[in-house]
Amino acid sequence: MRLVIVGGSDAGISAALRARELSPDIEVSVVLADRYPNFSICGIPYHVSGEVPDWRALAHRSTADLAATGIRLITDTTVTAIDPAGRRITATPRDAGPATHLGYNRLIVGTGAVPQQPPIAGLDSLGPADGVHVLHTMGDTFALTDTLTARAAETAVIIGAGYIGLEMAEALTHRGLSVTVLERLDQVLPRTLDPELADLVAVELRRNGVRVHCGAAVDSVGHDPDSLTVTASGARHRADLVLVVTGVQPDTGLLAAAGARLGIAGSIAVDEAMRTTLPDIYAAGDCVHTHHRLLPEPAYLPLGTTAHKQGRVAGENAAGGRARFAGSLGTQVVRVFGLVAAATGLRDTDATAAGFEALTVAAVADDRKAYYPGASPIHMRLTGDRDSGRLLGAQLVGRIDAHVAKRIDILATAITYRAAVADLDTLDLSYTPPLGSPYDAVQQAAQAWMTAAGRR
Amino acid sequence: MRLVIVGGSDAGISAALRARELSPDIEVSVVLADRYPNFSICGIPYHVSGEVPDWRALAHRSTADLAATGIRLITDTTVTAIDPAGRRITATPRDAGPATHLGYNRLIVGTGAVPQQPPIAGLDSLGPADGVHVLHTMGDTFALTDTLTARAAETAVIIGAGYIGLEMAEALTHRGLSVTVLERLDQVLPRTLDPELADLVAVELRRNGVRVHCGAAVDSVGHDPDSLTVTASGARHRADLVLVVTGVQPDTGLLAAAGARLGIAGSIAVDEAMRTTLPDIYAAGDCVHTHHRLLPEPAYLPLGTTAHKQGRVAGENAAGGRARFAGSLGTQVVRVFGLVAAATGLRDTDATAAGFEALTVAAVADDRKAYYPGASPIHMRLTGDRDSGRLLGAQLVGRIDAHVAKRIDILATAITYRAAVADLDTLDLSYTPPLGSPYDAVQQAAQAWMTAAGRR
Repeated sequence: MRLVIVGGSDAGISAALRARELSPDIEVSVVLADRYPNFSICGIPYHVSGEVPDWRALAHRSTADLAATGIRLITDTTVTAIDPAGRRITATPRDAGPATHLGYNRLIVGTGAVPQQPPIAGLDSLGPADGVHVLHTMGDTFALTDTLTARAAETAVIIGAGYIGLEMAEALTHRGLSVTVLERLDQVLPRTLDPELADLVAVELRRNGVRVHCGAAVDSVGHDPDSLTVTASGARHRADLVLVVTGVQPDTGLLAAAGARLGIAGSIAVDEAMRTTLPDIYAAGDCVHTHHRLLPEPAYLPLGTTAHKQGRVAGENAAGGRARFAGSLGTQVVRVFGLVAAATGLRDTDATAAGFEALTVAAVADDRKAYYPGASPIHMRLTGDRDSGRLLGAQLVGRIDAHVAKRIDILATAITYRAAVADLDTLDLSYTPPLGSPYDAVQQAAQAWMTAAGRR
Repeated sequence: MRLVIVGGSDAGISAALRARELSPDIEVSVVLADRYPNFSICGIPYHVSGEVPDWRALAHRSTADLAATGIRLITDTTVTAIDPAGRRITATPRDAGPATHLGYNRLIVGTGAVPQQPPIAGLDSLGPADGVHVLHTMGDTFALTDTLTARAAETAVIIGAGYIGLEMAEALTHRGLSVTVLERLDQVLPRTLDPELADLVAVELRRNGVRVHCGAAVDSVGHDPDSLTVTASGARHRADLVLVVTGVQPDTGLLAAAGARLGIAGSIAVDEAMRTTLPDIYAAGDCVHTHHRLLPEPAYLPLGTTAHKQGRVAGENAAGGRARFAGSLGTQVVRVFGLVAAATGLRDTDATAAGFEALTVAAVADDRKAYYPGASPIHMRLTGDRDSGRLLGAQLVGRIDAHVAKRIDILATAITYRAAVADLDTLDLSYTPPLGSPYDAVQQAAQAWMTAAGRR
């Protein structure tokens, strides 16, 4: 049995490993456009910052590790066509070798996503050579670090205040650059947090010297002899480096051309087994739509955690298994200097749109007993269904030692099991004064929600 | 309606607050033996260490806060008898005033626990004046800090390596004392961890200068003109201070004398509503047995978190409500110098005794991506039921910045919802390289368990 996988990032490699693990007889080939399989793309900001000096450390597994599992890696090769009827793909090596055909019994597509190109005048004609960057691949990373070292960039403008934008604001500040973040919407982390909590993150950015401009729609990017210029909402920002990180879109050209049905936001439609609508072709990761545990319709939720899980399901099924992707809650966490912001499940507007009687309640509770040195407040927002009392979503912002990431995971676990907000109060959570309270912060948030809902 | 509560710690005050909250018309009196209502007993080690210099800071709420809720506090008063037929108690003020009677419509007993007095020769005749201490009340705390300051103690022997023993080993080391811990059983934290993980905690204690002797049964405690002497398993240890922390037993004399049925370990038997077998008398906290979510029979699990929840249930029901105590998992966490150890649910032997086909599997995974600076291993043991695949318990040990406490809470939440170990793998947990992995450490432990169980 020949299994061919297109894409060597989280989804593709997870699929390959799982197929090999289950059936060592399957011949697994992974075709990837560059020579960096299984890299931790989420780790790029920490290499750029200098915290992870050697980029090779970002590999989840080395090429040798992967080869040792018996996976055949076909690097620097772009797949340009899928022939579903002929069960073969067309692959073109980067260094101008001839296109070849590769036959398969099963195909898994994990092409991921590509950076969105926002409609900004001048952006089309500028690139890394000018100091204008995107950041999605190791190639992008090398181009960026080249600009940083070769051009000795001192100032940067980041367009987009999503989590990558903010991680890069920290990374470049850490490297000594003066950083400005421009966000079209009126808050940072618009896809993750409600404005009340996003404001705390903006304060933390400014406290660390980052200039943050929200509601700043970028009109144009250009350059004069000395520097790049970014015009946003009438204001002009100069920089040696411009980073465009306004989100991603699924990379679906290959499957779309082959006739696969598309889902939301142009992503590939798949079922729970990660099957596309084409015979013997699976897809997984940032190129597909994702089942959300709380929503009736799939959503576009490109996240590394999800890509790993979907890839594993695709690999298992391509190898003859019967795995099902259990679904996502869109759980996210981002560290921004000394703060951590995390969210899971639905926010108020999403919940309302999904037909829930959403009620969102704010609460603040200390991460540990107030008397213990270093106690700091965790700012929380809990969303629940007023009718059923069910927990639907949560957002937390707190200091880095306030264990916010794992606290959101407690809530994600509760949502997975369809917990009522009232149930949180009765969970037997751990307590010691340096690390918590008799009722943990998340339980105190639940109590606040219950009171506001008139259920306590 | 007159509600009288005996005991002013977690259970008693939680009950009083809940009753007042629901029915401001209820007259609530709390009778307590000392003058320190609502103190955070779990915080005592951090006052002794000097981290929380002012003991008053250990109060969850001040006496004024409590009085403002309308609760009547009767301090320094010991309740010596309950007359269930006459619905009144006998209360004796500490300063030799006459005993008085106090009538009630409903009574809640939250007398807590008292330190176990181990059968050690010489212990009966020694006390705080000799430098021999127990540690369970604020009075005990003051006596101990007196010994530390007035006698300028330089060396301490701690008898018992449970969590209070280890917290006090750290606290006294922090104060500059040379500390020896003697434990009768052959590991530290015998009621919390399996030996493999307990050994890591012992190493951390020794790394910080604490002498740890396990399998050291103390035969006698005595004193000569210069110091106290503790003889254990033939060895003789000298110290200026001896702290006996070998566990607690429920303080049930009052209810037992009144005819209440006793449960396991001599604790008070209560139902889910926290009713004793006596009419209109409730009990809660360290003096009662506790429903364990995984066990058919109640257990004795004296923990502050449980006391808060049980007290609240008792208070609600005494005020005419219909609350039920949801049950405990025995979740615990303790910080020992730079390590945190946490556990929830059943260990292998408990699970086997309860009729499960217990399988316990060890795993080690980093707290964050290995490439991110500061990554450290979390040592884990997961117990599950081989037949059903159900998760039954977990133990974690890791560095203080490895977020072990909240990771055990993820597992406690999963156990509450009767999760299968396999489910953990599909949870949508948060991920960013500085704080986790695409599959979190607890998910990697679940994968190891599944592999060992032949289910993966």
